[in-house]
Amino acid sequence: MSGNGDPQRFLVLGGRGFIGSHLVDALLTRGHYVRCFDRPHVSPLAADHLSNPNFLLHEGDFTSEADIEAALEGCDICFHLVSTTLPNSSNIDPVFDVESNLKGSVRLLTHAVRAGVKKIIFISSGGTVYGIPQEIPIKETHPTNPICSYGITKLATEKYLGLFRELHGIECVVLRLANPFGERQRIQASQGAVAVFLGKVLRGEAIEIWGDGSVVRDYIYVADVVDAMMRSITYSGEEYVFNIGSGRGISLNQVLDSIENTTGCAARRRYLPGRSFDVPASVLNIDRAARLLNWTPKTDFDQGLDKFALWLRKQLEHSGV
Amino acid sequence: MSGNGDPQRFLVLGGRGFIGSHLVDALLTRGHYVRCFDRPHVSPLAADHLSNPNFLLHEGDFTSEADIEAALEGCDICFHLVSTTLPNSSNIDPVFDVESNLKGSVRLLTHAVRAGVKKIIFISSGGTVYGIPQEIPIKETHPTNPICSYGITKLATEKYLGLFRELHGIECVVLRLANPFGERQRIQASQGAVAVFLGKVLRGEAIEIWGDGSVVRDYIYVADVVDAMMRSITYSGEEYVFNIGSGRGISLNQVLDSIENTTGCAARRRYLPGRSFDVPASVLNIDRAARLLNWTPKTDFDQGLDKFALWLRKQLEHSGV
Repeated sequence: MSGNGDPQRFLVLGGRGFIGSHLVDALLTRGHYVRCFDRPHVSPLAADHLSNPNFLLHEGDFTSEADIEAALEGCDICFHLVSTTLPNSSNIDPVFDVESNLKGSVRLLTHAVRAGVKKIIFISSGGTVYGIPQEIPIKETHPTNPICSYGITKLATEKYLGLFRELHGIECVVLRLANPFGERQRIQASQGAVAVFLGKVLRGEAIEIWGDGSVVRDYIYVADVVDAMMRSITYSGEEYVFNIGSGRGISLNQVLDSIENTTGCAARRRYLPGRSFDVPASVLNIDRAARLLNWTPKTDFDQGLDKFALWLRKQLEHSGV
Repeated sequence: MSGNGDPQRFLVLGGRGFIGSHLVDALLTRGHYVRCFDRPHVSPLAADHLSNPNFLLHEGDFTSEADIEAALEGCDICFHLVSTTLPNSSNIDPVFDVESNLKGSVRLLTHAVRAGVKKIIFISSGGTVYGIPQEIPIKETHPTNPICSYGITKLATEKYLGLFRELHGIECVVLRLANPFGERQRIQASQGAVAVFLGKVLRGEAIEIWGDGSVVRDYIYVADVVDAMMRSITYSGEEYVFNIGSGRGISLNQVLDSIENTTGCAARRRYLPGRSFDVPASVLNIDRAARLLNWTPKTDFDQGLDKFALWLRKQLEHSGV
C-alpha cells in the first residue's frame, strides 16, 4: 500500500463541475495525477488545470460504456460526482433516471473492478435520500424513503457500492452532502438557493421564494466538502456512509439576511405559495464524520458567503453584467 | 369505490408461475376478472384457468414497454410477481438486473398511472432486502443492506412504489416474502430448498447441503402467501411494507427430518463446505402483518409439507419418473 504522501492516479467523474473542479485543485496541489472525465464542451470553471502536466481532460458520456471503460484504465481511485438529473426534475422521467444514473453507476462499478480500481468515493445526497425527516438533525441511520427519483437512484447506487465491496473487495466511501455553496457555483442553475439568491441580489433582480421563507436547510461551504472528500481517500473503516453538512439549520430568510449583510444590497423578496415537496426542515447530523473521518466543517455560513460573494462580484464585473 | 364483494379487473404479472397461479385461482374463485401476463410458452401449471370465461392469458415480455402498456389497459389492480433474475445469479450481471427488473418496474408504474390503475401489490423478498440480519426475527424497520443485486432492485422498486403513491396517489402494498413452498413449485429450480429436497428424496437422489445444515430459514406455505395477497386488495393504511413469513426458523437439517417423516423415505445427505453468502439465520418478524392486514399463517410447516408431498408424488407418478 502506498503511503499518504505518494502520488496516486485519480479519476474524477464530473471534474469540471462546481465541486469537482475544487476537488481537482486539491488533488493536483497534493501532487496526484488527475484524469478529469466530463461531457464535451462543458465551459471550464478552472481552465488552469489544463496547463498542469499531472492533469488530463478525458471527455465522454457517463452513459457510454466504452467511454467509462477507457476513463477507468490505470486509475487507483475514482471520485464519482456525476448525475444526469436534478432532484425536482427527476420525477418527470424516473425511467431515464434509472437508465442513466443507476445503470450507469452499476456499469461503472463493474468496469472499476475489472480495471483494478482500489476505491470509489461517491457523492450522494443528504437532502434527498432520507425523504421527510422523522427527526432533526438526521443521522445516517434514519429511514430512507426518498420523495424524488433522484434520491432513490442515489440510494440504490450506495447499496451497489456496499455490494461490490462485499463481493469484490473494492473499497468505497459515500458522502451524503447537504447543500453545498461557494465559488464556481452556477448562479443560473435551478438548484442551489445560495448561488441563485446571491446572483439575483448582486444584479438587483427580484427573488421568488416558495412559501414564507421559513424552510430550513443545511448549507456547507465547498472547501469543507472537498476537505471531507480528501479525508475519504485514506479512510478504510467498516462504516462507509457519511453525512457531510454544517450540522446547523438556516432558513431561507436567514440566507437572504446574510446575503444583504455581506453584499450591502437589499434583497427584493417576492413570496409565493409553498410547494408540496419542500420538507419544512432538513439538517444533517455530522457526528459520524467527525468521529471516523476526523472531519468537521471549518468555514461558517457567513465566512463562506463572504468568499463566494467576493468571487461572484469579480465574475460579474468581468462578464460585464 | 367498489365493495369487497364486487368483481374487479386484476392484472397478475407472472400469473403462470408457482405463486401466481395460486393467486389466479383465488381471484377467479372470488369472481374477479383476471388478466394473466407471462412470457410465451411458459408450461402451464394450472391449465384449467383457460376454460374460465373470466380468465385471459396475455403473453408478452416484461421488459417490452408496448407489452406492459397493453396488459395494463382497463385494469383496476395489478399484482407484480415478475423477476427476471434469481438472488444468487443476479450478482453475475447486476447491470442486466437494473435494466430488466428495476427499469421494467418503474416503467410499469409510469404506465399504471396513465392507465388509471388504482393499486399495485408487489412481491418483494424478505430473504434478500435486509442483508445480514442484525437481529432475529427481522422487523420491517431493520436496516436494508442487500448482499445481492436481486435484493437491491427489489428494494429500489419498493421505494419507487412509495414515491408513486406520494406523487400520483396510486395505492401500493409490498409483501416481503420469506421462503414460499408448496404445490406447483418447480423441483428442478435452483432455488426453493423444500421443493428441491422433496423432489430428490422422492426420487431417491442424494442431496447436497452447503455447510453443516444448521442454516436457519423461514418457510411459508403458499396458501398463506396467497391469503396475505388477497388481504392486501382491500388494505388501505399508511404502512405499506409487510413481512410475510411463518415467523419461525427451521434449519436445513430439520427440513430434511420433516421430509423423511412425511415421505417415509430416507434423505441421502451429502454435506459440502459452506457458502460465504449464506447468512446463518433469517427469520421474519410478522407482527405488522398480523396487526394491520389481520393476517397470520394458518398452515404449519409439516402440514404444508404433507400437502406438497402428496401433490408431488402424483406429479411424479403421472410423469412416470
